[in-house]
Amino acid sequence: MASTISVNSPADFHVHLRQGSLSALVTPHVKKGGFDLAYVMPNLKPPVTTTEQALAYKQTLEKIDPSVEYLMTLYLSPELTPDEIRKAKKAGVSGVKSYPRGVTTNSDGGIESYETYYPIFEAMQEVDMVLNLHGEIPSDASANTHILNAEPKFLPHLHKLHATFPRLRIVLEHATTRAAVEAVKSCGPTVACTITAHHLALTVDDWAGQSWNFCKPVAKYPDDRTALREVILEGHPRFFLGSDSAPHLPHTKSTSTPSHGCAAGIYTSPILLPLVAHLLESFGALDKLEGFVSNFGRAFYKQATSVEHSKVVLRRPTAGKALVDEKYTLGEDSVVPFWAGGELGWEIATQ
Amino acid sequence: MASTISVNSPADFHVHLRQGSLSALVTPHVKKGGFDLAYVMPNLKPPVTTTEQALAYKQTLEKIDPSVEYLMTLYLSPELTPDEIRKAKKAGVSGVKSYPRGVTTNSDGGIESYETYYPIFEAMQEVDMVLNLHGEIPSDASANTHILNAEPKFLPHLHKLHATFPRLRIVLEHATTRAAVEAVKSCGPTVACTITAHHLALTVDDWAGQSWNFCKPVAKYPDDRTALREVILEGHPRFFLGSDSAPHLPHTKSTSTPSHGCAAGIYTSPILLPLVAHLLESFGALDKLEGFVSNFGRAFYKQATSVEHSKVVLRRPTAGKALVDEKYTLGEDSVVPFWAGGELGWEIATQ
Repeated sequence: MASTISVNSPADFHVHLRQGSLSALVTPHVKKGGFDLAYVMPNLKPPVTTTEQALAYKQTLEKIDPSVEYLMTLYLSPELTPDEIRKAKKAGVSGVKSYPRGVTTNSDGGIESYETYYPIFEAMQEVDMVLNLHGEIPSDASANTHILNAEPKFLPHLHKLHATFPRLRIVLEHATTRAAVEAVKSCGPTVACTITAHHLALTVDDWAGQSWNFCKPVAKYPDDRTALREVILEGHPRFFLGSDSAPHLPHTKSTSTPSHGCAAGIYTSPILLPLVAHLLESFGALDKLEGFVSNFGRAFYKQATSVEHSKVVLRRPTAGKALVDEKYTLGEDSVVPFWAGGELGWEIATQ
Repeated sequence: MASTISVNSPADFHVHLRQGSLSALVTPHVKKGGFDLAYVMPNLKPPVTTTEQALAYKQTLEKIDPSVEYLMTLYLSPELTPDEIRKAKKAGVSGVKSYPRGVTTNSDGGIESYETYYPIFEAMQEVDMVLNLHGEIPSDASANTHILNAEPKFLPHLHKLHATFPRLRIVLEHATTRAAVEAVKSCGPTVACTITAHHLALTVDDWAGQSWNFCKPVAKYPDDRTALREVILEGHPRFFLGSDSAPHLPHTKSTSTPSHGCAAGIYTSPILLPLVAHLLESFGALDKLEGFVSNFGRAFYKQATSVEHSKVVLRRPTAGKALVDEKYTLGEDSVVPFWAGGELGWEIATQ
């Protein structure tokens, strides 16, 4: 069994870096977790809807940690215009994120129907900007739509968008179901899919009554988890890591009242590369690590490794075991990572 | 629209009355919630496994509130013998509760296979004692068994037990799925089914990230909830109320840590009759209230209303609305009811 692994400049193609003091705490964790590139989600308050906002946000992040490359996104909303898309592309903005209304953190301004946005998608296809889809439809009891079938029921939208805009690069974000894996596989080379670390570990049983494991989309059934693992084992180049690492202050994760539940989101940034290595090893896919966390996503996003990026080396824990920190604190803020207090089979040696 | 409803002596055919100080707090809530009869679960620590323990427990409950009739049960476990069944029957114990191992609160001593217990079931059939089934099989990722299909996957056990012991009265407890409703319907007159109040209100979306709505079995999909409502609307006499009201101290419900989740259970006893009336009215089944909360269960359990039991009368809230209490306290213990702070369309006028 190998005692070190060298990984080409890791890239996390879906991460939440928040704003204000929380951002100051969590942004440096991208690098701490072994990653050189962060594809940054735009669901701030207010959401990032213009090129100016995206560039200002990028500057803020670079001020916190200039050693990471930040790829910026806009939030798909009625304010967006084809002109703004062309402007954003010229300014280096990478993608546009679509949230169905109300399905996750800060998605109140999310979309209700895609047809309205066809002129936007047309412009995106023309300038080669990526469309990032949160692939769930809102729950609707009258149609028996709920959080466990919200993703499979979204997939016809993916197929329709792909058929209508075949050259538009689309990423189905944080896939959690066998149905989603199969749908993406059946699409052409312009459609890819991110998979989180935590969805490789959890099933519905793990978040029932355990809000620290609660995120959106929720982890599904064991067979769905198997499908995510299988497509990684297969080394499919259109499936790569997007951690969806989503920090929340501990009291919003740990405490519910009868009138208010817990925040959705799992925080993996500070342990991400060792965690992914640990999980891939658990199902025999350690040899697929570099493709999954770096090469496949970089190829799809046309983000070749730049020369200044060094390889990251993982090693077996020198202290016999690598324990996940219980929490990280800066000023009055703290965040608790996934698997807090747990044990990982790998640690970062050099980066 | 009627402004009062009179209900024949209500009977809750599945309730957890706990022990010690918590029992002193919650036992009077049976009557407060409008009920004259409590069918008492045996999952104490240690579980109630002998006639002596059941009688002692009954005495304790009668000391707390002598106005309620308590029907006692034994916990199915290897200690139980056919002789003990005959002894229990003579002493007035009503049933035996089977818990699959590890699926809910205090079920560590639950059963793993039914064949071992056939001599017990034979004796129960002979003396006409009721078998109460917690109808879930344990989760097993390798078989894609999880908390959402654990009940449908249990149903072959129900059919096999019914076929093997056709005269044994069996109750499938707290059914949550369309599959369970259909399975019970397809059985003969010796098989009945309890339905809780909260499963008429909740779906999986309601307990995701909201531990106050987390119970076992978990609330399922909207179509399953529809099936529960439909069988009540139909007035099917083998489907009746068993609240599964399960009190837990607030800190065990409201607070999770990364290493420890929240307790499973929803507490409905103190508001039970108004809550059930409210829910049945919401789907047009108010005229089925008396059958569902009294007559059907009493008929199956051969518990005719005794003359000393008065009718309970519900009325429209005299204060314009009836708010559910935020909590109930006795000494250092408190419990928070389902729908705390919420509004009910009915209140108890006289009982």
